[in-house]
Amino acid sequence: MTQTSTTTTAAPLAPHPDRLFPADPAARDIARTVYEAVADAPIISPHGHVDAALIADDVPFPDPATLLVTPDHYILRLLHANGVPLDQLGRVSTTPTDGREVWRHLASHWDDFLGTPVRYWFETELHDVFGLRSAPSAENADEQYDHLATLLRSPGFRPRALFDTFGIEVLATTDAPDADLAAHARLAADPTFSGRVLPTFRADAVFDPARSDWRHVVASTGEAAGIDTATHDGLLAALRARRQYFIEHGATATDTGVLDAGSTPLSAAERERIHRAALEGPSGVTAAEATAYRHDMLYRWAEMSVDDGLVMQLHPGVLRNHHQPTLDRFGPDTGHDLPAVGSFTEPLRPLLNDFGTAPGFHLVLFTVDETVFSREIGPLAGFYPAVYAGAPWWFIDTPAAIGRYRAAVTDSAGFTKTSGFIDDTRAYCSIPARHDMARRADAAYLASLVVTHQLTEEDAVRTAHRIVSDIPRATFKL
Amino acid sequence: MTQTSTTTTAAPLAPHPDRLFPADPAARDIARTVYEAVADAPIISPHGHVDAALIADDVPFPDPATLLVTPDHYILRLLHANGVPLDQLGRVSTTPTDGREVWRHLASHWDDFLGTPVRYWFETELHDVFGLRSAPSAENADEQYDHLATLLRSPGFRPRALFDTFGIEVLATTDAPDADLAAHARLAADPTFSGRVLPTFRADAVFDPARSDWRHVVASTGEAAGIDTATHDGLLAALRARRQYFIEHGATATDTGVLDAGSTPLSAAERERIHRAALEGPSGVTAAEATAYRHDMLYRWAEMSVDDGLVMQLHPGVLRNHHQPTLDRFGPDTGHDLPAVGSFTEPLRPLLNDFGTAPGFHLVLFTVDETVFSREIGPLAGFYPAVYAGAPWWFIDTPAAIGRYRAAVTDSAGFTKTSGFIDDTRAYCSIPARHDMARRADAAYLASLVVTHQLTEEDAVRTAHRIVSDIPRATFKL
Amino acid sequence: MTQTSTTTTAAPLAPHPDRLFPADPAARDIARTVYEAVADAPIISPHGHVDAALIADDVPFPDPATLLVTPDHYILRLLHANGVPLDQLGRVSTTPTDGREVWRHLASHWDDFLGTPVRYWFETELHDVFGLRSAPSAENADEQYDHLATLLRSPGFRPRALFDTFGIEVLATTDAPDADLAAHARLAADPTFSGRVLPTFRADAVFDPARSDWRHVVASTGEAAGIDTATHDGLLAALRARRQYFIEHGATATDTGVLDAGSTPLSAAERERIHRAALEGPSGVTAAEATAYRHDMLYRWAEMSVDDGLVMQLHPGVLRNHHQPTLDRFGPDTGHDLPAVGSFTEPLRPLLNDFGTAPGFHLVLFTVDETVFSREIGPLAGFYPAVYAGAPWWFIDTPAAIGRYRAAVTDSAGFTKTSGFIDDTRAYCSIPARHDMARRADAAYLASLVVTHQLTEEDAVRTAHRIVSDIPRATFKL
Repeated sequence: MTQTSTTTTAAPLAPHPDRLFPADPAARDIARTVYEAVADAPIISPHGHVDAALIADDVPFPDPATLLVTPDHYILRLLHANGVPLDQLGRVSTTPTDGREVWRHLASHWDDFLGTPVRYWFETELHDVFGLRSAPSAENADEQYDHLATLLRSPGFRPRALFDTFGIEVLATTDAPDADLAAHARLAADPTFSGRVLPTFRADAVFDPARSDWRHVVASTGEAAGIDTATHDGLLAALRARRQYFIEHGATATDTGVLDAGSTPLSAAERERIHRAALEGPSGVTAAEATAYRHDMLYRWAEMSVDDGLVMQLHPGVLRNHHQPTLDRFGPDTGHDLPAVGSFTEPLRPLLNDFGTAPGFHLVLFTVDETVFSREIGPLAGFYPAVYAGAPWWFIDTPAAIGRYRAAVTDSAGFTKTSGFIDDTRAYCSIPARHDMARRADAAYLASLVVTHQLTEEDAVRTAHRIVSDIPRATFKL
Repeated sequence: MTQTSTTTTAAPLAPHPDRLFPADPAARDIARTVYEAVADAPIISPHGHVDAALIADDVPFPDPATLLVTPDHYILRLLHANGVPLDQLGRVSTTPTDGREVWRHLASHWDDFLGTPVRYWFETELHDVFGLRSAPSAENADEQYDHLATLLRSPGFRPRALFDTFGIEVLATTDAPDADLAAHARLAADPTFSGRVLPTFRADAVFDPARSDWRHVVASTGEAAGIDTATHDGLLAALRARRQYFIEHGATATDTGVLDAGSTPLSAAERERIHRAALEGPSGVTAAEATAYRHDMLYRWAEMSVDDGLVMQLHPGVLRNHHQPTLDRFGPDTGHDLPAVGSFTEPLRPLLNDFGTAPGFHLVLFTVDETVFSREIGPLAGFYPAVYAGAPWWFIDTPAAIGRYRAAVTDSAGFTKTSGFIDDTRAYCSIPARHDMARRADAAYLASLVVTHQLTEEDAVRTAHRIVSDIPRATFKL
Repeated sequence: MTQTSTTTTAAPLAPHPDRLFPADPAARDIARTVYEAVADAPIISPHGHVDAALIADDVPFPDPATLLVTPDHYILRLLHANGVPLDQLGRVSTTPTDGREVWRHLASHWDDFLGTPVRYWFETELHDVFGLRSAPSAENADEQYDHLATLLRSPGFRPRALFDTFGIEVLATTDAPDADLAAHARLAADPTFSGRVLPTFRADAVFDPARSDWRHVVASTGEAAGIDTATHDGLLAALRARRQYFIEHGATATDTGVLDAGSTPLSAAERERIHRAALEGPSGVTAAEATAYRHDMLYRWAEMSVDDGLVMQLHPGVLRNHHQPTLDRFGPDTGHDLPAVGSFTEPLRPLLNDFGTAPGFHLVLFTVDETVFSREIGPLAGFYPAVYAGAPWWFIDTPAAIGRYRAAVTDSAGFTKTSGFIDDTRAYCSIPARHDMARRADAAYLASLVVTHQLTEEDAVRTAHRIVSDIPRATFKL
C-alpha cells in the first residue's frame, strides 16, 4: 500500500487542545486556565512498574509492539475481549511473535477502543511522543509500524532521553524483597543523570503462606538481609533490615497488594507457630491460618512504617488470575485480574486503632471498587491523620472515574488528604499522556467548582498546583 | 365536565424534540445530529415479554386500562406507593375492575410521577401513539379514556398494525420450557406478516428444586420433549431437545433469572442424587442441596450454549415477591420484586473458567445493582470474549442511569462488548417510546464524548448506528 | 495586627448569588427561578440535635468556638484529619481550652477545607449570620474572633432572636426515653414564642442489651413511665406510655439509629427470656441473643408506630466510635463514627411484610452508603406506601451527593416519597445555610430536568415548593 492511499483512508490523529474540558464555554475557559497553569509541571510518579534497569542501562527499546502493546494489560485485555487470542499478542515466550503482526491486530481493532480512556491516552501518546498524525488502521498498520521502529532506533528514543523529554522529576519503581537495587544505585551515582528513580519495597509474597512462592521469598529475603528467617521474629528482623536498605537507596514508600485489608494482629506465639508450620510445606497450615498470618503481617507492616517512616501504600481487593487456563498458558498479568468488593473501614480497624494517629505515619488507600470512595476511604481520610485517599487506579483511572472520585472524596476529605495521580504503569511511554489526562480531569473538576462558585479561580489554580506537586511530595515524603 | 373546562385546566402534553439532550448548545447540537441519524432506525427488541399470540391472533386490545396500566409494573408500583391499593388497579381476577376507574386513578396521580422516567416515556407514548395533547388529570380522565377506547377499536390499533407503525424489525418473546411455539410458527408461516417474532427459551423453573412448581415443570418439559426426566441426565437431554425445538422456531437466545450467579458444577452422581431426591417431594432436599443443584444447572446451561450456539442471557439478583401478603392476594409481578446486591466475578468463575473463551459463546450479563457495572460487568466484558455487558434494566433503564452505565462500562469495555437496548416489556405500546429514550440517552452520552474531544462527531454517529443495529445483531446473533 | 493589614491579605468572603447553579446559562436561569421561588420559605427542620433548653432558656452563647467549632463534628474531623489534635479543639472538659486558640486552628487550616461542602456552607453562615466579609486566615483570626464574640453578646444573637432571624417554622429535637420534655412544655406554653419546637423520641439505647448503658436506660425509662420494666412486656408498656407522653408534647416522630436494619420478630417467650437474662448483667446474653433482641425491638417499634401514628425514622449503618483511643480520651461524637455497608431490602423484610402497607404508617429510611439509594431505598419507596426515601445525611449531605440522590431516587420513587431536607445538626447557626444549600442543590437538579425537557419550568417551581413545605409536612405529619 502506498502512503497516499493511507493518507486518504485513515482518520486524522489530532488530540484537541481543549480535550476533557467541560462543554460550557465559561467552564471551559476556567478549566483551560487551571490546566495551563500545571500543563508543563514536572511529572512526579510515586507509584509505577517501570524497571529501573531500563533507565540505568539505557538500551534502545526492541520494537514497537514489545514497547507499546505486549506489556500493557490495558490494551491487551481489550484486544482479547474483542477476539484476538493472547498467543497472537506476544505473550508466549516459547513462540516468538512478529511485532508487526501484533501491531496489525491493534490497528485493525482500533475501532473497538472507541470511547475508552485507553484509546484517549494512547492517541495522545502516539501523537505527542511518536508524531503520528493518522489513527491506526488496517491500511496504515505496516507503515506506522515501520515509522515507530525507525524512531525507536534513534537516540532521542532511548529511555534516558525520553525521561528528560517527558519531564519526569521523580519516578518510583516497585521492587522485590530481595532486590539488590543495583540499577537504582548506579543511577544515583551517575553524574550524567539528574532524575530521581526511587525503589519501592513490595513484600506481598512474604505476607501470605498460601502462595506457592512464599517459602522461596521468605528464604531469599533472609539471604538478602543476612538474617535467618526460620522464625517469624527472624523474618520481621530481615524485613526491617531490607526496609532500611531500601531507605538507603532512596525509597520513601512500601506498596502492598492483598486480597483483603484485614489487619488483626496475632500473639507472638501464634505467629511463630503458623510461620514454622508453613515453612514445613504448603499443607502445613490451613487457609484460615494463612489468612490470619497475612492479616497479622499487614499490622506488622504498619508498625514498621511508624518506626522507620516509610509511607505505606495499600491496594487490596484484586482477584488475581481469574481465568485459570489463561494463567496456565500465558502466566500472570495477562488481563484477567479483576476487581473484588472493596472494604476498608472494618478490616483496617485494628491497624488504625493502634497507628491511625501515630505521628508521621502515612497510609495511602487505593481501591478498584468505586463505591468505597464515598462510603469508606473519604470518611477515613477525613478523620485519621494517617490516612490518605489514593487516586483512582487501574480499572478506574479514567476521565469519568477521576471526576467521580473527586466528587466523592472531596466531600469528605478535601484535597489535602489525597495522593495525587498514580500512573501505576509498565508502559513507559504512556506516562506523560496519562499524567496529562489526570491534570485535565482535575482541571475540569476544579472548573466545575469555580463555575458553581464553590471555589474562586485563584483557589482552583492554587489547588491544581498542589495536586501535581505539593500534595504528592507531602503524601509520599518526597 | 365539559371538554372546554378540560382544555383550560389540563397541562399540554408536548414532548420536546430536544428532550434528554445536554443543556449546552454545542453539545445539544451534536446530540441532535447523532440522534437524528438513528431516530427512525428499525427497532430491534431482543428481550421482552410480549405474547407472540397477541400478534399472531391480532385481536383488538380490550380497553385502555388493560392495555396501558394493569400489565405495567412500572406504573402499577408507583400508583401503589402513592396510596392506590392494587385491588383498585385491576389485579384481582375474581373482582373485575372497571377500566375507567383504573384510568381515573392514574390520571389523578399523574403528579406523583413528576420527574420519573416512567412519566417521561409514558408521555411520549400517549402523545406519539395515541395522539393525546393534554397531560392526564382528574378532570380529563373520562374524556381521555373514551378517546383511547375508541382508538383501540380502530384497525390501525390492532397489534399487527402497530407492529408496522412502531417500525419493529425483530421482537423476541420469552417462553416456557414446554411452550409449543405455535403462535411463532403461525407468524413465520404467514406470508402477510414480514416481521420477525422470535421465541426465547427461559427455563429458570427447571433450575431450582426449591420452587413449588419445579416438579411440574420438570415433568412438562419431559413431555414436551418426549424424554423421560426422572433422571437428571434425562432432564438435560430433554432441555437439549427443547433448545433445538426453539432454534428450529427461530430462537437465538435463552434467558435466565436466578437469585445469584453461582455456577459451581456438581459431579454426575451428585446431581443425579439431588434430582431424584427432589422428585420425591419438597422435603426431599435441603436448601443447600437445592442451591448446589441450581448452580450446577447454570453451568450446564452455559455448556449447552457452547454446543448449540444459543446466546445465554443472565439476570441474577432480583428478590422476587418481597411482600408476601401482596403475593398471596394478587400473585407475582405486582411491583414488589426488588434488587438484591449484585455479584458476578466470584460466582461466575467456574463457568467462565471453562467457557469464557469458548468460540462463539455469548453470555450477556444484566444487573439491577448499578455498582456492579464499573466493578464487575465492565471488567469481565473487557477481558472475556464471551461476556457482553447487558444494558441497564428494569429499575435502572432510565435516562440518568443509562448515562451512568455508559460512563462505567465504556471505560472498561468500550461499546462493542455491550448488548444494545433491552426494553424487557410487557407493555407493547411503550416499546417505541422506550427505544427512543435509549437512543436519546446514548446520543447525549456520545455528544458528551464529542464535546470533550474524546470522539469525533463522525465516530459518534457511526457508534450510534452500531448501538441500534450492528451491536444487538452481533450480540444476539440475529 | 492592624485591621488594614488583614484587609489586604485575607481573601474576600462573598458567597455568590448563583452558587451551586449549573454552568450553562439557560439551565442557570431556570435554577435561579426555581430557587428564588423557595429561597425565603420558612425552614422546616424535622430532624436535628439542637437542645430545646437552649431556646427555652434563651441564654447567650458562651463564645465563638463553643458555638461554631467544638460541637460540629463536620468541622472537627477535618481539622483532626489535617493534624490538629482534639485536645486543642476544646474536647477535653478537664482542661478547658481557650476559644481563641480553637478559632486560630480553624482559621489557619481554612485552606484544608477548600472544595468541601463544609467550607461551602460555613462561608454562607459566617457571611449571612455573622456579617464576616473576609475568609478566615491566620492573620485575621483574632480580629474575627473578637468580632464574633462581640456579636454573641448582643440581643440579636440570643437563640430565640436567631430562631426568628433564621425563619424557622418547625424545629424537631432528639430526646432520650426518660426525657421530661420540660423545655418543650415551657416553649409550648410561652405566649411570646410562636415557633414549633417538637421532641423526637429516640430509644436506641433500649434496643440493644449489648450496650453498657442498656440496663440503666431500661430502668430510667420505666421510672419515667411509672411502669416496671423487669419484664419485656413491661418495657414495651413503658415505651408505649413514653411515646404517648411525647405525643402529648407535640412529637410526631421517633428516630432510631442501629448498626443494621434486621427486623425479625421473636416469640413472646424468647424475648422475655433474653430480657431477663440481660438484666442480670452484661454476661447474661450472647452477642447473637443481643442482636436477636435488637431486631425484635425494631419490629416492635414499627408495630407501635402503626398503633400510635408516630413517624418512624431509621438510620442504620453507622459504625460508632471507630477509634477506641479517641473514644477513651474524648468521648463519643468526636468525628470517628464511620459509614458501614448499607442494607435495607433483606433485613427489613419481616417488618415490611407485616406493616409495609399498614394505613398511616410512615417509615423514613436514611443511609450513609450511597449505593443503597438506587438499589434499595428508591425501589422500596417505589412500592411500599409506608416507605419514604430520607434525604442524604451526614457524610453525604453535600451539593454533589444531593444531586446523585435525586437522580437515583427520583428514577424509582419520584419526589412524593422522599423526606425533604434533614439538617441533623447540633450546630444551631448552620441551619439556614444548610437548608439554603439543599434548596439550591434541588433547584439545580430540577433545572437539569427542565433543560432536558423532562419537566416544565412550572412543574419545577411547584415541585420545589413541595420539597420545602408539603413533602416534609406530609412525610413527618407536621
